[in-house]
Amino acid sequence: MQVFKLTEEIIEHIRELIASDQKQQLKDYLESLHFADIAEITSELELEEAAYLVSILNREKASETLTEVDEEVLEHILENLSNEEIARDLQELDTDDAAYLIADLPEERQTQILSHIEDKEHAQDIVDLLRYDDDTAGGLMAKELIKVNENWDVDTCMKEIRNQGQHVTRVHSIYVVDDNEVLKGRLSLKDLIASPQGAHIRDIYIPKVDFVFVHDTPEEVARVMQKYNLEAIPVVDKMHRLVGRITIDDIVDVIKEEAEHDYQMAAGITEDVEADDTIWKLTRARLPWLLIGMAGGIGAASIINGFQDGLTSFPTLLLFIPLIQSTAGNVGVQSSAIVVQGLANNSIDGALLGRLFKEFLLGLINGLALATLVLMMSHFVFGSSYLESATVCAALVTVIINAAVIGTFIPIFLHSRGIDPAVATGPFITTSNDILGILIYFMIAKIILGF
Amino acid sequence: MQVFKLTEEIIEHIRELIASDQKQQLKDYLESLHFADIAEITSELELEEAAYLVSILNREKASETLTEVDEEVLEHILENLSNEEIARDLQELDTDDAAYLIADLPEERQTQILSHIEDKEHAQDIVDLLRYDDDTAGGLMAKELIKVNENWDVDTCMKEIRNQGQHVTRVHSIYVVDDNEVLKGRLSLKDLIASPQGAHIRDIYIPKVDFVFVHDTPEEVARVMQKYNLEAIPVVDKMHRLVGRITIDDIVDVIKEEAEHDYQMAAGITEDVEADDTIWKLTRARLPWLLIGMAGGIGAASIINGFQDGLTSFPTLLLFIPLIQSTAGNVGVQSSAIVVQGLANNSIDGALLGRLFKEFLLGLINGLALATLVLMMSHFVFGSSYLESATVCAALVTVIINAAVIGTFIPIFLHSRGIDPAVATGPFITTSNDILGILIYFMIAKIILGF
Repeated sequence: MQVFKLTEEIIEHIRELIASDQKQQLKDYLESLHFADIAEITSELELEEAAYLVSILNREKASETLTEVDEEVLEHILENLSNEEIARDLQELDTDDAAYLIADLPEERQTQILSHIEDKEHAQDIVDLLRYDDDTAGGLMAKELIKVNENWDVDTCMKEIRNQGQHVTRVHSIYVVDDNEVLKGRLSLKDLIASPQGAHIRDIYIPKVDFVFVHDTPEEVARVMQKYNLEAIPVVDKMHRLVGRITIDDIVDVIKEEAEHDYQMAAGITEDVEADDTIWKLTRARLPWLLIGMAGGIGAASIINGFQDGLTSFPTLLLFIPLIQSTAGNVGVQSSAIVVQGLANNSIDGALLGRLFKEFLLGLINGLALATLVLMMSHFVFGSSYLESATVCAALVTVIINAAVIGTFIPIFLHSRGIDPAVATGPFITTSNDILGILIYFMIAKIILGF
Repeated sequence: MQVFKLTEEIIEHIRELIASDQKQQLKDYLESLHFADIAEITSELELEEAAYLVSILNREKASETLTEVDEEVLEHILENLSNEEIARDLQELDTDDAAYLIADLPEERQTQILSHIEDKEHAQDIVDLLRYDDDTAGGLMAKELIKVNENWDVDTCMKEIRNQGQHVTRVHSIYVVDDNEVLKGRLSLKDLIASPQGAHIRDIYIPKVDFVFVHDTPEEVARVMQKYNLEAIPVVDKMHRLVGRITIDDIVDVIKEEAEHDYQMAAGITEDVEADDTIWKLTRARLPWLLIGMAGGIGAASIINGFQDGLTSFPTLLLFIPLIQSTAGNVGVQSSAIVVQGLANNSIDGALLGRLFKEFLLGLINGLALATLVLMMSHFVFGSSYLESATVCAALVTVIINAAVIGTFIPIFLHSRGIDPAVATGPFITTSNDILGILIYFMIAKIILGF
């Protein structure tokens, strides 16, 4: 593949060029690279080195590189640039990238920077975009799009498209609006070219067009674009006025981040971290769940402590505590993972009761299969009495069913309350099932063995 | 959002129309829907109903719907269609969708179907695509693309583009090849239009173009397209001859599937399952990992059994078995998840030793924090002796460090051997850490308490 591959050697080479101040050589080398590659390089450098690297790029490449660098690199570089310099960067960029670049700066500085942008329309578009929350379609969209009025004739339309086209990197669709800017449909370039110059747009446009609202979530936008294989989708406000468009490359990032977020939650990591983050950030992301797990462990200790008498009379019971506990945890994680994924894909519908009954059956089947094996182990290998073995098996089946049903119920319940169901996966499910599992185990033992 | 939303009512309504054989009404209703919506509906119907629904669609919509239905629906419908009918479907579709449709049929039937396709070039393209493994760029690409020879002049080129354009739904790029079909670069439509008719392509094309090889993995293609925000990428063979192109919508599915696969592996589910799959399929996907977990539980039981004497002398030790076990499991899952994700994103580089040392430090920090809390609990709440409390704390720190290092090492090791590191997450890591954790706990107890 004729694709850039970052190696240790490249980093070393660049560091040497920086250290020995060979600016022209460095410039020539960077010139040959894509801005995404340069951004990748900066994440391996010290902040100062990264800032220097970006500073020697030409304006256009520097601006584009800034849209791809890590947040801390961006923050550091913006701190050291003047408002005029940042304004020049924004001028080079599409409105969505420009808004992203300064979104985290204090509002006062944003205003100062924007006042230095010569193209007032561009500045106004960026201001518009800054209003929207990151977590909405409005926060994802760009202002660059081609739109024509339904009352124009073909001739006016062609002139306008040529004019608007200068600001748009890639024309995905031509959108048609009425005098109030309300989205009416889209126009095929083929139909436009094939129509007589005097024809009106309202007679040739296609009135069917998918769109999303500015307040829709990125996940919803991703679902629609993915389902209908769209490369771009128009965004409208509550009055159905066309305010922007989202392209598939922004959505690819959303899909990826969403899947990774769910995965990290399931693995008990609270912040979005990467392997190369600092130890401090990694600790902060991991310790909270470990504390919850520890609370579960202390809870389990209390339960065992409460049943000391039983354990003294029936010592082999204690051997199976880890088995009961880990099985409960595993079953809970499996059930919740399937539900969380189904909810993320919108593929879960139908009655909750039916789903819980299905998990009950699943738990029963898996439970009986495992219990049969454990029955033999406990009786023949560990010399438990018949009653003790029966206790372990009955507890195992009950615990598995319980974990399966809880693992299914909790994510669905959270989702229905508008809470991200992913918080219910991983350590949360494992911990609650740990405690419940051990409690059920001892309760059943108390009933069967009567201590 | 003006987007189709599947409800119970719609399904009921369609079922009634099918049952009462109101073909025309059903046809009219389906005509108004997107084929992706119709495919979504079929997944809620019985196989027979789904087949009937597709059978009453017009040829074009039926073909497109087939590319989106669940595998079992597709299989059932293909079984009941004649070779001629399937050939007609393939004729309606782009080559990649056509190849997908018949990929799982016996080779003999594929040959029969392809012989009924009138457009021999289209049939040949499908045959070409069927050669490639699902899990390669070749298996993802389509043959529809616009390519021009570097030796043509602008006039010939325009004619050819108009001609080739008829087969291509959306023109992403114009690729330039030499007489041997070797990919040389791409052509901007703007430059083409701005050039005099007699100019040669070789003088106006852009020689810089990203591409992938037919044998590259879909994940690699996804990584490149995502990094450079590409909407399409050309695919070449080993001789650098242009053989196809991949568009971003195919890649969106790859990215999503890859992330979901890793997540399911981490949650202990071996097959790609959905919440609505049959109980049998779900059991088959879940039981294997539960058996591994159970083996771990039995292993833990053996270890506890071997240390019975120690437990009799120091009874509060047993209270902390669940704590040690669950903490080891949680830490292992956290560490492995970060590494697996880093490997999937290609963001992990640098020396293995450095990474392990970092995990060691992380484990030490988290371990000391948790141990301090446990020390107080064990001494004041459960009345453990100083030595017993010290044992629990020393074990906790050791177990956490051990789990963090193992959780980091195993995925990297598997990856370096060409094995999917995701198998090392979830139950596998949990189970091995469970056993190791308990073993370490008792070994340390034996050393400190001397039983």
